[in-house]
Amino acid sequence: MRIKNYRQVENKPAVLSDGTPVENVYVRWLIDKEHDGANNFAMRRFELRAETNVPLHSHSQDHEIYILSGKGKFFNDSGEEKIVERGDVVYIPPNEKHGIKNLGQEDFIFLCLIPYLNK
Amino acid sequence: MRIKNYRQVENKPAVLSDGTPVENVYVRWLIDKEHDGANNFAMRRFELRAETNVPLHSHSQDHEIYILSGKGKFFNDSGEEKIVERGDVVYIPPNEKHGIKNLGQEDFIFLCLIPYLNK
Repeated sequence: MRIKNYRQVENKPAVLSDGTPVENVYVRWLIDKEHDGANNFAMRRFELRAETNVPLHSHSQDHEIYILSGKGKFFNDSGEEKIVERGDVVYIPPNEKHGIKNLGQEDFIFLCLIPYLNK
Repeated sequence: MRIKNYRQVENKPAVLSDGTPVENVYVRWLIDKEHDGANNFAMRRFELRAETNVPLHSHSQDHEIYILSGKGKFFNDSGEEKIVERGDVVYIPPNEKHGIKNLGQEDFIFLCLIPYLNK
């Protein structure tokens, strides 16, 4: 077994899957293939600073998300939007467009796990 | 996207992969194949009541674990044991024997994700 605290993992500026950087968003890859030999899926922890917006985007990996703290909004390109807080869970299927906004003055923090599709 | 709060998901008595029930352990399948169409991996939220022990066991799915609250211990059959608390992360590779104990008087609560190996 491999055990660490999230603070021991580097908090890096986040980029979208096409390489576009997203300002004021940081990500820690808590469990991944490279460091842990986790070949099936990866656990990431995101922090969005106050008022930060992640624009609509999509990709072939689905997302499993658990909100840890703060208050945010998930939205898609059909006009659907939902406000979420600690203990809320979000599933985003493969290739579904989605965006995220921090609605609070504190960080909006969540876990977001994605599969390794080409193992 | 599918959004829910963990409290909306039924909290069921847990069983080991061989069907053995584990007393005082409860699990919510927060995101899974059956309800959400999540075909790659499942997100579960476990609660271990005070002083509860999950005995050593193993299975072909690896575990990605994030501790939400309480104080617990992970151990294996080599005598290795580690105490964990909120914000700690545990990776258990496929087929590695592992056990879990709640060391506190409050619930020991964590997320534990597993892959669907036969999709």
